[in-house]
Amino acid sequence: MLPYKAYCLDLDGTVYKGKTPIKEAIEFVHYLQGKGIDPFFVTNNSSMTQKQFQQKLAQMDVHTSEDHIISSSIAAANYIDEHYQGKSVFMIGESGLQEALDMKRIDRTEEMADVVVMGIDHHINYEKLSNACLSVRAGATFLSTNSDHAFPSERGFLPGNGAFTKLVEHSTGVEALYMGKPQPFMLELIQKKYGFHKDEMVMIGDNYKTDILTGIRMGIDTVHVNSGVNRTEDVLQQLEKPTYLLQSLSEWIK
Amino acid sequence: MLPYKAYCLDLDGTVYKGKTPIKEAIEFVHYLQGKGIDPFFVTNNSSMTQKQFQQKLAQMDVHTSEDHIISSSIAAANYIDEHYQGKSVFMIGESGLQEALDMKRIDRTEEMADVVVMGIDHHINYEKLSNACLSVRAGATFLSTNSDHAFPSERGFLPGNGAFTKLVEHSTGVEALYMGKPQPFMLELIQKKYGFHKDEMVMIGDNYKTDILTGIRMGIDTVHVNSGVNRTEDVLQQLEKPTYLLQSLSEWIK
Repeated sequence: MLPYKAYCLDLDGTVYKGKTPIKEAIEFVHYLQGKGIDPFFVTNNSSMTQKQFQQKLAQMDVHTSEDHIISSSIAAANYIDEHYQGKSVFMIGESGLQEALDMKRIDRTEEMADVVVMGIDHHINYEKLSNACLSVRAGATFLSTNSDHAFPSERGFLPGNGAFTKLVEHSTGVEALYMGKPQPFMLELIQKKYGFHKDEMVMIGDNYKTDILTGIRMGIDTVHVNSGVNRTEDVLQQLEKPTYLLQSLSEWIK
Repeated sequence: MLPYKAYCLDLDGTVYKGKTPIKEAIEFVHYLQGKGIDPFFVTNNSSMTQKQFQQKLAQMDVHTSEDHIISSSIAAANYIDEHYQGKSVFMIGESGLQEALDMKRIDRTEEMADVVVMGIDHHINYEKLSNACLSVRAGATFLSTNSDHAFPSERGFLPGNGAFTKLVEHSTGVEALYMGKPQPFMLELIQKKYGFHKDEMVMIGDNYKTDILTGIRMGIDTVHVNSGVNRTEDVLQQLEKPTYLLQSLSEWIK
């Protein structure tokens, strides 16, 4: 069954788990591509560039074009380009966010800025956080790629961009606008660029609070897969349920 | 009028404002000392050592012994010494906290620890925050010197230790135990060491939410002075009022 035109797949927990591909998802992508449908990949991870995601996926035998990979950094750069053209931007982030801003020719400053945008930054320091706080207190628009408070690593759960954003929110009393899931900005970007109707789109993911809620907020169909953070039985307890609950995407290869 | 034995003065906003001494407070300290009473100085600032505070006060013509200066770092070190002797401690902080731990011969580790203690650290980085999060998630006792979310500087309000502690709290879902005001640990330390009765102690400060609430929670008399963050008229709106509301401490030099 292939009732949709735009299959939007989450990455971590849905297509792969860290460095390990999820076989059923890879097969599903191949199946779609065999039918002439190129899926989209929608991730809150702001740290990597589209090229880096493309290479990571290629190593798992998933071959896709860069512009079918939408990260929260891409959403942030598009949002700034659309709403704050010509404004000065102070960025905390890594190559994913940096390149996304560069692609939109958004000028960055290390001084007080009109717009502050935060993504995960493993080289975070007191000066960067101070400049964010000072700018936000002075009235800067405050954007953040994603609200994930932690993410898994070999060592355990490490602090995510949501935790660093919370620091600035707590210090300044100003709340950030988040670009990643469960906000629908990334899906809106896909919809606008390719002119899809909402009933032609589906959001597929393992995480109820990010993936499924994004689809619900966007008003499109949703698919929960039982390969990541939330188990099927837990998702069934939610008031707003996904359109489909699958053990894996192999159920859709028929 | 000198009805008390232990006059506990907040520092910033009460004795000085940044680098500027508050004349009436300095005169009050001289007045007390002229009557043979050595006041205590009680500060949430964890960054400086007792020696550094002593030198700063001496430059303002306030001369006191180091052990009459109680910082949130001193409270933290005493708390760890009392409750977690022999446990491994991971510290985020500066010389004030470092020296306070050293004075109690508390061993520090850079690895996973039984106790995490956070104070302001201008050399904060991702690795330090990760180790704090990993240790706290693994069950470490989580202490923080103070909950101040911001503090004034020449550039404006910079993020305080409370904001960094919030990051770890938000990422791990575990709340820290704060050592500074409005918790009464610093006042309890003074009470225990010198054997004061509660009716012999008074807490004097400009900040309702830290200084005055500390005194109220401790069950001792409190004095609000109109020289810092909260105006007298605002303090009068509070349900629990301080024992005395003064424009300045010169009202008590009679």
